Amino acid sequence: MPVQSLEYPKQPFSTVRRYDSRATYSLEQIHQIINTSHLVNVSFTVPDSPFPQTLPMIGQMGSFDRPSADTGDVLDLYLHGYVSSRIMNLSRKGGGDSKEPAGLPITVAASHVDGLVLSLTPNSHSYNYRSATLFGYATPVTDTAEKLWAMELITNSVVRDRWRNTRVPPNGAEMQSTSVLKVKITAGSAKIRSGPPSDEKGDAQDEALLNRVWTGVVPVHSVFGEPIPSPYNQLGQVPGYLGEYVKGTNAYAEETALEQAGKAMKPKGKTDD
Amino acid sequence: MPVQSLEYPKQPFSTVRRYDSRATYSLEQIHQIINTSHLVNVSFTVPDSPFPQTLPMIGQMGSFDRPSADTGDVLDLYLHGYVSSRIMNLSRKGGGDSKEPAGLPITVAASHVDGLVLSLTPNSHSYNYRSATLFGYATPVTDTAEKLWAMELITNSVVRDRWRNTRVPPNGAEMQSTSVLKVKITAGSAKIRSGPPSDEKGDAQDEALLNRVWTGVVPVHSVFGEPIPSPYNQLGQVPGYLGEYVKGTNAYAEETALEQAGKAMKPKGKTDD
Repeated sequence: MPVQSLEYPKQPFSTVRRYDSRATYSLEQIHQIINTSHLVNVSFTVPDSPFPQTLPMIGQMGSFDRPSADTGDVLDLYLHGYVSSRIMNLSRKGGGDSKEPAGLPITVAASHVDGLVLSLTPNSHSYNYRSATLFGYATPVTDTAEKLWAMELITNSVVRDRWRNTRVPPNGAEMQSTSVLKVKITAGSAKIRSGPPSDEKGDAQDEALLNRVWTGVVPVHSVFGEPIPSPYNQLGQVPGYLGEYVKGTNAYAEETALEQAGKAMKPKGKTDD
Repeated sequence: MPVQSLEYPKQPFSTVRRYDSRATYSLEQIHQIINTSHLVNVSFTVPDSPFPQTLPMIGQMGSFDRPSADTGDVLDLYLHGYVSSRIMNLSRKGGGDSKEPAGLPITVAASHVDGLVLSLTPNSHSYNYRSATLFGYATPVTDTAEKLWAMELITNSVVRDRWRNTRVPPNGAEMQSTSVLKVKITAGSAKIRSGPPSDEKGDAQDEALLNRVWTGVVPVHSVFGEPIPSPYNQLGQVPGYLGEYVKGTNAYAEETALEQAGKAMKPKGKTDD
């Protein structure tokens, strides 16, 4: 982690214009949101349709060149999931135009909902959330060592330490059939809302209203249930690394939602929506 | 609900090409995924950037003309959230070209992760998930009656019955400051994966491997915590409609994750990824 915390440069397409008091460009905060998301949404423009394509994928940020880098450092995003031949073909192209970097321009979005924020009026209702967007250029990983490293990074993002607790390394056919995309990040931003609801003065001083409407936060988080063995599982009990991961992730998710519910934001002059 | 279940027509941009045994075009299934998502991801192309814009928004499907319509019917998507002046301006345009419908072409994506699917090899790992994509044209809602109806629809999607338990109707300034987008849907698809892991024969018959690697599903779902009153809340207890909603939604989410973990898919010839 650098001594001073790094920020992504603001680009016209990455600058948060609404509620900019909720915006952050901090690498650490953005990478943290991405790396704790089960899925990220990958969007890109396709030549023959007015609609962007959006694919849910598993993504994890890391540095192949400096594996010890932490979330606050400059990192690449590695993507795995439903990689259509289309996205692979598109990401092999590009870079011919000297002004544009190689690869497919993609937008990556991930959000955590931390709470329902219930105020006196529908207009002031909100969510507590942490939402990140990254912009970058995706290319397929072709180097075998990097691909293997990325596969381990991604597998261990699903369950910590899972990789070495499975049959590895992948065989030739598995390496062949698996596609990993590497995204060089150009810009990014995040928006974070936390804390209790806030209402307009007129409503907040209306005693009859206050006596009628419940206001507060309903915390929201993701939870892992008890692991369910497969029909062909032969282990008598859930292994330690898995049990601890389930327990630890659940505790962290619950704590985060509660922490966000209590964390007051800077005062602001207008209502939420 | 129609007697025969409706499907979205397959368009070149909406057809699922990979794992098409997991695909569905059923309005009911797609609308159900959207309507139970805390957030949807809205993506659209912008003229001066190679990167699509992606915004997390609150979305709910319904029919203003036929409010009694259910999830299996033809519905519109109403969106609320971080509506930048940019998306509003873009969605006021369009339709000039007679070949294109009015409004901004947008892609809407929502996913539920129902479980981590842990198999013998990293390559066969997967998620249980329900993932939907809709394609349509977004225009701002200008009719006051429809806007009010949509605001109620969206508010009650956050907490059932919340609307009439707040200060309504919104005043003139609130109506003015709130933007609702209506999306006419052109096409849509969903992908669903459920059931236990499956492994290649070679691995599944390897006794040493089976004795070493735990396989199965870790169910995943979203959970609401105990509601936390705001500093200015004056109600002694959580109102019935809210307590029941929290309880009911949690039970439904947990049941769904467990049900998806147990629900076997059609057999398939290849490994997961």
